[in-house]
This record gives sequence, structure tokens and C-alpha cells, in this order.
Amino acid sequence: MTTKTHAPMTQFSNQNNELLIAGKTASQVVMIAGQTPCYVYDKAVIKSNVDRLRHFFPDISIHYAIKANPYAPLVCYLSDLVDGLDVASGQELALALGTSTDTNNLSFAGPGKSQQEIAMAISSGITLNVESLTELQRIIELTEHTQSTADIALRLNPDFELKSSGMKMGGGSQQFGIDVEQLGAVLELLQHPRLTLRGLHIFTGSQNLRHESIISAHNNIFALVKRLIEQYKLEIHHLNIGGGFGIPYFPGDTELDLEPIAQNLNQLRQQHIQQFGDCEIILELGRYLVGNAGIYVCQVTDTKISRGKRFLITNGGLHHHLAASGNFGQIIRKNYPLAVLNKMDVVETEAVDVVGPLCTPLDILGSNIELPAAEIGDIIGVFQSGAYGFSASPRDFLSHPHPVQLLL
Amino acid sequence: MTTKTHAPMTQFSNQNNELLIAGKTASQVVMIAGQTPCYVYDKAVIKSNVDRLRHFFPDISIHYAIKANPYAPLVCYLSDLVDGLDVASGQELALALGTSTDTNNLSFAGPGKSQQEIAMAISSGITLNVESLTELQRIIELTEHTQSTADIALRLNPDFELKSSGMKMGGGSQQFGIDVEQLGAVLELLQHPRLTLRGLHIFTGSQNLRHESIISAHNNIFALVKRLIEQYKLEIHHLNIGGGFGIPYFPGDTELDLEPIAQNLNQLRQQHIQQFGDCEIILELGRYLVGNAGIYVCQVTDTKISRGKRFLITNGGLHHHLAASGNFGQIIRKNYPLAVLNKMDVVETEAVDVVGPLCTPLDILGSNIELPAAEIGDIIGVFQSGAYGFSASPRDFLSHPHPVQLLL
Repeated sequence: MTTKTHAPMTQFSNQNNELLIAGKTASQVVMIAGQTPCYVYDKAVIKSNVDRLRHFFPDISIHYAIKANPYAPLVCYLSDLVDGLDVASGQELALALGTSTDTNNLSFAGPGKSQQEIAMAISSGITLNVESLTELQRIIELTEHTQSTADIALRLNPDFELKSSGMKMGGGSQQFGIDVEQLGAVLELLQHPRLTLRGLHIFTGSQNLRHESIISAHNNIFALVKRLIEQYKLEIHHLNIGGGFGIPYFPGDTELDLEPIAQNLNQLRQQHIQQFGDCEIILELGRYLVGNAGIYVCQVTDTKISRGKRFLITNGGLHHHLAASGNFGQIIRKNYPLAVLNKMDVVETEAVDVVGPLCTPLDILGSNIELPAAEIGDIIGVFQSGAYGFSASPRDFLSHPHPVQLLL
Repeated sequence: MTTKTHAPMTQFSNQNNELLIAGKTASQVVMIAGQTPCYVYDKAVIKSNVDRLRHFFPDISIHYAIKANPYAPLVCYLSDLVDGLDVASGQELALALGTSTDTNNLSFAGPGKSQQEIAMAISSGITLNVESLTELQRIIELTEHTQSTADIALRLNPDFELKSSGMKMGGGSQQFGIDVEQLGAVLELLQHPRLTLRGLHIFTGSQNLRHESIISAHNNIFALVKRLIEQYKLEIHHLNIGGGFGIPYFPGDTELDLEPIAQNLNQLRQQHIQQFGDCEIILELGRYLVGNAGIYVCQVTDTKISRGKRFLITNGGLHHHLAASGNFGQIIRKNYPLAVLNKMDVVETEAVDVVGPLCTPLDILGSNIELPAAEIGDIIGVFQSGAYGFSASPRDFLSHPHPVQLLL
């Protein structure tokens, strides 16, 4: 038992006892979706996330990593707001090519890209973030075979680690990127006339809520890049430093403080440009742009008291929202922030378990969580569900209906 | 580090350095699938699972729980071999109705069944396993409204727990079933002329590898049923005691010993029939019927040594096989049994990490696992993948191609 509580979900307001999402009450959202469960994403919240980043990072490019949420209308909406899109598969690339973003500002990262994916990237003229020597050789062969050229960036696995990160993606032994120690061998291949080195990509980890750790990672990245530029006489047009900005999910989590990160990063950028000339610094963000804008909405279909414990059984669950069930990278299951969206003004609460319709004890949305007394038909919302929700869930598990998605 | 190893996968044999699946080499299977990744399920292995159960449990009915693997050809194949099918959603019911199984031998369990699902069940004449008082009331209303009748079974939450179970689904506070203490209240409603009580369903937990625990659960179930029959003068046509028979996944796991379970259960059944007259005893199995018959097959697309650790990067991963990545109910990630399917005779091994193409460190199929030296193009197989694989995975995560499924 803990006395910690969830941070308030201040990105939304209430009206007449109901949560307001894009000016619609929760009940209206359910009617618009035509069903529960549904995922609803709020454009205004996404916009305010971008605005906040623009405020703190006026000279830094902001990219959206589609893998966080590939819902097409949402990607199109973000495409108009940010400076670039990053894709992690051929199908994400196909989606990105249909948006307003110029191919110059599209990049493709990920280990083990297939021959088809490499061909898609080269043919469409986007930047390939190269993850291995094999991949570089495949790119060269394909450009020779098709008499084309390729813009590439090198994804480097740095020789330091990010502290306090939800998931480490750099430092130590990694499937991601090329160890910096191996850069010399790679640069020889890079002399090939069909290749243009556009930049470097150094991503250290995701879902970090400690600004000190992110600042330290940025310092290390710029120091490493300085060393590499000097050692290898590199000329780079851009430097993608990844993202890793976390959002609060669990009791005790607090919002990331952007101000000190911005102060430090803006300074690093200026120093870099003074020393080496102009360079586009890119923050590649997924979760931070969309995570807090999404709510997973389901309804109570049954209530039950079993040996003193009260259960709310809903029509939503792990098949639609694997992460909220605690089965997506968490070691210890913790509750996402939940609310009864049509009882937002009710102060008195009771401890309940919120579960789904699946015949498995893994199907939990809230365990021993305090909620206003809910009845059949009440609307349950899982906040912070805009990233790694719909697309990261096993929606066919037990063959229940899929959720509808809405961008409002 | 552990010295424990995986149990040998004796359900398959080898030929000329390749694994044989239904008489086809791994390379042939890949050609038949037309691509990797694919899931391949071996009919003969499924058949031998059924045969083994028939041998040990000649007087017990065997049902297949579709949720373990709803691949339609596999469900149809099993339908001809077993005595009944159990469904967990409306769509699974639709699938079951298309098989050879008589509606008398179809049952539908799961908390929070929707009104539509209840209507589907009543209209098609299958048995509804009732999970709550609300559900019973809904069934009565619907039969009155449609002038129909309903066959029901009561799913009971027993007052004991199953030991050593992968997942507990009975005992304590549960979203599943009706607490036995509440049975009196339910039986009053059951007097309704439109309802026929066909049986009881008591399921205690899944993935159990200790025969002592299963025997103890069976003893407890029969003692409970005896008590309930005597106390409430129940007449039941069947007793579904669930399944829970585990299969070995991880190093150190060993095959479940069926013999003592069978000996005990056959005796329990005879005693029950002597005392209360004929009653169909049903074992409802999912994983045990199909788990060891399935292999997830992918191919190495890149190899990499990063700071001394060797990585095999494949075109398969957590998006296709969530459980093998360790993100489906496991507390501590452990490796599923893996092999290089075209190097089955190679004795010398090396420690590698087998990862997928996703841009996330969660995308692991094998961590520090001993395999023959593998190269690009080699075929990697993940054994024990016939249950909770394809359908329980977030196949759209990062928008890579879906695996093909084959029943051979």
C-alpha cells in the first residue's frame, strides 16, 4: 500500500460532472464513437504539447516518431505541426509519405530493415538511419543496382548510458545502432559516391522523468559528437538526439521539468554551431507529443462483490490496452490513472478492481484503485493512453470487438 | 546464470540437419508459407495430444478452449477429435458454430458478456456458463422477451485455491464465477421455467506442471460439488472441471505426469456416479492440446557483435509472439525453447541474443541463449508456440507484416 496518488490530469476539464474532451462530454464522446470501447485523442492537447516544446526549444527541430501512435488522422494532424516524422517500418513509411511532411524530413530507423524496406526508403528519397554494417552494405548494393543515391544518417550506440530511463536504448551491448568504436570501419564504406551522410542519430532511452538524467545524456551526446567530428573530420547536416521525455503514468510520477533541459540544450547547440558551423538539432518525440492526449474509454457491464472485494467488469481490457494491464514492459504492475468519466465531481470513493471481459486474470485495468461508486453503464476512462495503446495491444485476443478511434 | 536447460522438444524429429514438421523440413515449411515469419501447427502433434488424453481419461469428455488458438482450420481439425468446444466471446461462438461440434457441446464462459453475446448464445442453443447474478437476470429477461429457453451452467468461484498454478482463476476474490457462498441466492432465480441448469463449471487455474496440485484441486472440486449437491439437491448433467494442465516452456520445466492425475480423477468420477448417478465430467483444455504443436518461425536478417555480445536480428519478434518476448504475464523474463531449424545437427553452440526488428528493447526472443552459430538467412524456431501466440500478440505494433499461419 502506498499513499502516493496519481498526478491530476490537468490537460482536461470537467463540465456538469463529466469529463470534457475537445469540448464534448464523455457521454457525447461515446455517442460520437458509436460504441465503447473507444480511444479518443484530443487535438488541442497535442497542439499544446507542441506549443510547449516550441516555447522551450525555439531553435530545435521537433520530429514525431510514428511508432508511438500510427492512427492516420493523428499522424496527419501532427505532420502539420512538427518539422519531421520518423518511421520504424515500411508501412509507417507509406503512411508518412501521404502526409504534408517533405521527404527531406522523413527518416527511417530500426534494426533488421528488410530489403524491401531499404528499397522503399531509397526510392522515396528519405533518410535511412543505418543501424549496422550489413545494412550499409545492402544500401550500397541497392543504389548500385538501381543507379540511385541514398541519404543516410548513422545511428550510433554511444559509450555511455542514460540514467533513470524507462527503457535503455543506447550504451553497453545493443541491437540498436553501430557501436561508436566501430565508426572508423563504417566511414570507409561511407566514401561511396552514391551515399550522402546527412547526420547522426544517438538515442539513449525512453520514458525518462528526471531532467538531470536527460541533461546528462545531452551533455554526453554533444561531447561524443564533438570528439567524433574532430577525430573523423565528419560534416553533418543534422544531429538527431532522440527524445526520451517521459510522461507521468503512475502514482508518485511528476511532470518532466523542460526548462533546465531547454536551457542546457540551447547552450549545447550554440556551442556546437560556433565550433562546427550550422547543424539542425532534432528532438524525436513520440510519447511526449501524444501520450497525455489520449483516453481509453470503456463502460461498466457488470459489478460484483466477491469475498469482500468489489469488481467493476468493463467491456474494455488488456486486448485493447496492454500497457494499462501491466503487461508491456512493466516489472511490477501499477495502475494507470483511471476515472469514472461521468462522475467527475463525486468526491467520495471506494476501492475497486476494474477488470475486462477476458477469461484471464491478466485482464486488469485497475487494481485496488479508488474510484467514485460506479454502476453498470458508467463510463471508465484510462488516461495517458495516447501512446502505445491501440497499436501496441493484442486486439484479436479472444476475438472481442475492436475499439473505435477518434481524433477530436 | 543457471545450469538448467530446456526439455527436449521430442514431439518433432530431424532430417538432414533440419527440423521436420509434418514431414516437411523447416526450409520447405518456409517455402509453403511463402514468407517468414510464420506460425506452423502440426496436426499429428495435436492428434497425439488428444490420443494421450484419451488413453489416460477414457471416460472423461475432452473440450477444447478456443481462446488458446482460434485459427479456424485448427479449430475445425480439433472439433473432429474432441467432445466439445468452449468459447469466450461472440466471435469465438460464431467460429464454433461453423465446426462439426453439436451445439449441445458448445459452452460460453467469460465475465461481462454483452447483451449481444447472451442473445447469440441463447439463439444458437448453446450452454451459457453464468458468471454473475446480473448475467443470470439478463438471461432470464432475454428468454422472456424472445419467448425462448436457455441452457445454463453455473461457473462457481470455489472456496479453495489451486497451488503452483501459472495463473489463479478460482479461490479468494475473483471476477470469475459466482462465489459458492452466494449459490443459494442464485438457485432461487434458477427456478425460472425458461432456464435449464445443465451443469457446474469450476476452474481453478492454468499452466500447472505439478500433478500433486492438480490432484488436490480435483479432490477439492469433487468434495465441493458433493457438498453443494447434498445441500441444495442439485441435479447436474455435467461437471466442467476446467483444465490447467501445463506444458514445459522454460529451462527446468518438465512434462506434466498425467498418470496419477488420471488415476485419481477416474476414481473421483466413479464415486460421484455411484452416489449421484450419471454425470459427464469435462476436462476443458486449451494450451495442453495445441501449445506444443506450434512453432513460430522467423529468419535471421542481420547479425551484429556489440561490445562482445553477439546479436541475431530476425524478422520476427514481440509483435508476433508477445509471450516469447516475456511480456505476457511473466514476472521475470525467461527464454522459450529456441533452435536454428536448419542447423539441428550442429552440436557446438554460442551464447547469443535473438532480437526482432522493433525499435524497442522489449523485442527479445532469446536472451543469452545457446544456439549453433547462425548467419543471415538461417531459420529460427520458437517452440511451444501453438497457444497464446499469434492471437495474443500486438501484430500491428510498428506496422510490420503479419505472420502467415499454417496447419500441416
